[in-house]
Amino acid sequence: MKKIINIAIVGLGQIGIYLYNELSTKKKEIEIKTGKKINIVAISAKNKNKKRRFKIDKKIFYSNPLDIFKKRKIDILFEVIGQSDGISKKLVEFALMNKIHVITPNKSLIAKHGDQLAKLAEKNKVNLEFEAAVAGGIPILRTMKEGLATNKIKKIYGILNGTTNYILSEMENSNETFEKVLLKAQKLGYAEPGNPKLDLNGFDAFAKIRILSALAFNNKISKDKCIMEGIQNIQLKDINIANQLNLRIKLLGIAEIINNQLFETVHPCLVSKDSYIGNVMGVMNAVIIEGKPVGESILQGEGAGPGPTSSSLLSDLLSILRGNTKHPFGISSHKRGYVKTFNNNNYTNSLYLRFEVKDKQGVLSSITNRLTKFKISVKRIIQTPDKKNNKATIVIITHKTSEINIKKCLSIFKKNKNILNFPTLIRLQN
Amino acid sequence: MKKIINIAIVGLGQIGIYLYNELSTKKKEIEIKTGKKINIVAISAKNKNKKRRFKIDKKIFYSNPLDIFKKRKIDILFEVIGQSDGISKKLVEFALMNKIHVITPNKSLIAKHGDQLAKLAEKNKVNLEFEAAVAGGIPILRTMKEGLATNKIKKIYGILNGTTNYILSEMENSNETFEKVLLKAQKLGYAEPGNPKLDLNGFDAFAKIRILSALAFNNKISKDKCIMEGIQNIQLKDINIANQLNLRIKLLGIAEIINNQLFETVHPCLVSKDSYIGNVMGVMNAVIIEGKPVGESILQGEGAGPGPTSSSLLSDLLSILRGNTKHPFGISSHKRGYVKTFNNNNYTNSLYLRFEVKDKQGVLSSITNRLTKFKISVKRIIQTPDKKNNKATIVIITHKTSEINIKKCLSIFKKNKNILNFPTLIRLQN
Repeated sequence: MKKIINIAIVGLGQIGIYLYNELSTKKKEIEIKTGKKINIVAISAKNKNKKRRFKIDKKIFYSNPLDIFKKRKIDILFEVIGQSDGISKKLVEFALMNKIHVITPNKSLIAKHGDQLAKLAEKNKVNLEFEAAVAGGIPILRTMKEGLATNKIKKIYGILNGTTNYILSEMENSNETFEKVLLKAQKLGYAEPGNPKLDLNGFDAFAKIRILSALAFNNKISKDKCIMEGIQNIQLKDINIANQLNLRIKLLGIAEIINNQLFETVHPCLVSKDSYIGNVMGVMNAVIIEGKPVGESILQGEGAGPGPTSSSLLSDLLSILRGNTKHPFGISSHKRGYVKTFNNNNYTNSLYLRFEVKDKQGVLSSITNRLTKFKISVKRIIQTPDKKNNKATIVIITHKTSEINIKKCLSIFKKNKNILNFPTLIRLQN
Repeated sequence: MKKIINIAIVGLGQIGIYLYNELSTKKKEIEIKTGKKINIVAISAKNKNKKRRFKIDKKIFYSNPLDIFKKRKIDILFEVIGQSDGISKKLVEFALMNKIHVITPNKSLIAKHGDQLAKLAEKNKVNLEFEAAVAGGIPILRTMKEGLATNKIKKIYGILNGTTNYILSEMENSNETFEKVLLKAQKLGYAEPGNPKLDLNGFDAFAKIRILSALAFNNKISKDKCIMEGIQNIQLKDINIANQLNLRIKLLGIAEIINNQLFETVHPCLVSKDSYIGNVMGVMNAVIIEGKPVGESILQGEGAGPGPTSSSLLSDLLSILRGNTKHPFGISSHKRGYVKTFNNNNYTNSLYLRFEVKDKQGVLSSITNRLTKFKISVKRIIQTPDKKNNKATIVIITHKTSEINIKKCLSIFKKNKNILNFPTLIRLQN
């Protein structure tokens, strides 16, 4: 690799502009660590004149990012736009085909097109790095690709979305409703002001678990349908009842091998308040790896925000500058296989079921009868009457049962007039 | 690098023999991940015929490890003997000078001679890797050298010795004395059966903190005198009193920059039971890094034992096989500087002081008067009489005071006949 490295940054949102500033101020340090001089020779974003946290050099601004490659010789491209397709995909493909290294925090792109892009990178002998796509500042991908490289990983799981973890933590702390806390999160910049949906519905965490899973088990990114649930239906009531039970609700991403089959999921989970994962609060992310021979490894850190994300983007940069050419997923694409998918229907958990019902005689027994019919045995019932409104909340903790069983069992409650909403279901951690 | 790599393992104790077995069984996997075929062509240990956990190939056994290099072309040497000098140093030096990569879990060697050995490795353009020297299976060195490479680290601290953490945890769990629990630890293989001193007196943790500190702050390994205290003086009594105060005793290693000066220490510390570090129990290790822009990062995992240690040794091997030539301390030796050392006397903490005294009038006031004289103000006093023996235990929690102050203040208690032992001092986490 030559001594002077030309860099382009496309996308100057929160992350992009922070990265631009970090690169500008850390040139000297990067040269000391790698022996390479970096030059930011091109930047691009939708709006040239938007007010930004740091001042940009307008002389190197390009309105159309594809023009950059016509005008300048680029060695490394930072793609910080964040689309799963469209211009993000186009740019990354173009760069890789033209032997330009790519660094991106774009989890949607990698979760969707990672396999194809990795092949392209390998074919052109350049790096495609995406440490920042998963768990912000936590160097989890590097840890799996290198630090734990020869371990046999059985399970990897954790809290992968800071926004939802903040909301759940803050609902407990402040005893405020989901809606109020969501507003707070948006004000603090933890949740997208316009459309926080991808965080809340589990999609964001899901893209991350798919990337982690591909790395952990050396398989191609799975495309199969999985259980993906977010926190939209979690109410303050659930937080408080969990509290009484010495439990806490966390949105977990889980990838594991069950009977040699791959199981991936994202769903809210009731975990013990005394457990490690139950004590990861606020915007923190945490990933737990169960491997052999290493045992249990935990990595925790800030999972979002420009600071932590930049830290990972720069670690990718240093890796490239040091000349560490690597397969994007740790091993060569043609050696990554397919692992058969575990049938979601057979996923088994104890359940927390919250029913909002009319306060009438026989309602509870109609519920328990239905559960009994499906051999779902009840561990605990907590009934809280709301006399004024002639309603009641019934929470049932069940013994272990399978997804298919519970799906069949719950379906009927849609038609029961005494049950006011479809029951809220939260799985308990096994 | 050529395609077939010759490996020698010197030292076949608990770690060495486990590594030997791992390498033998994971050849295929290593080839898939790196494209290189490894061959173990030489092993060496004191005793050829000792009963070992895994069977060795006696045809490749050498009684004198230095003979290996006369008979075979070695590409990578695993030094798993563990001495800080002597044959360990000799072997590693010889290997590096002859352009043989070295991988070692030997923290004493690196903490003592790491700077010189790193220079030697750089001069000969080979790798000296020691991921396994600190915190067993936790890839903490790699994380600092690569994952957090461009962060400005302010402080790094944690639980770096699994043996002492097990002892402290188990004293609390079982309510048994230090001596009994130490025996248990030795039976379980957590503490050296012969000489557990280096674990107990903080020396082991201290070697690790020196290595971490050199990496975190890009400085040469410090040789200055520091505060190093172990857990030998911690009694069950202290564990129980801490418990009442919602505190827990942990042996912490700390390296931080205070006023642009380097401060390194290992000592028992009272931490909140509600803190993260207060909940790292048993043989677990944990390292906390405070950096910018990444914020707080935590890595936790099994800190000792052949499994976790092998995991790190193999990660070093893969790094070398992938051709990632690197400076042993992340940056070139001649760019690593010296950071001025912070004066230990100015280290400031709240203190826990336990006095064992004769149950006589005036003893408490003689203690508090003395403290007052040195402007050490008392936050809390817990006095527990032992009427039968005409003794009492006095525990004093002080407000913050400096080391020099407390040293001066406590010295006189040696001469006080009513005070039965020199007081036990445990610092509170700031």
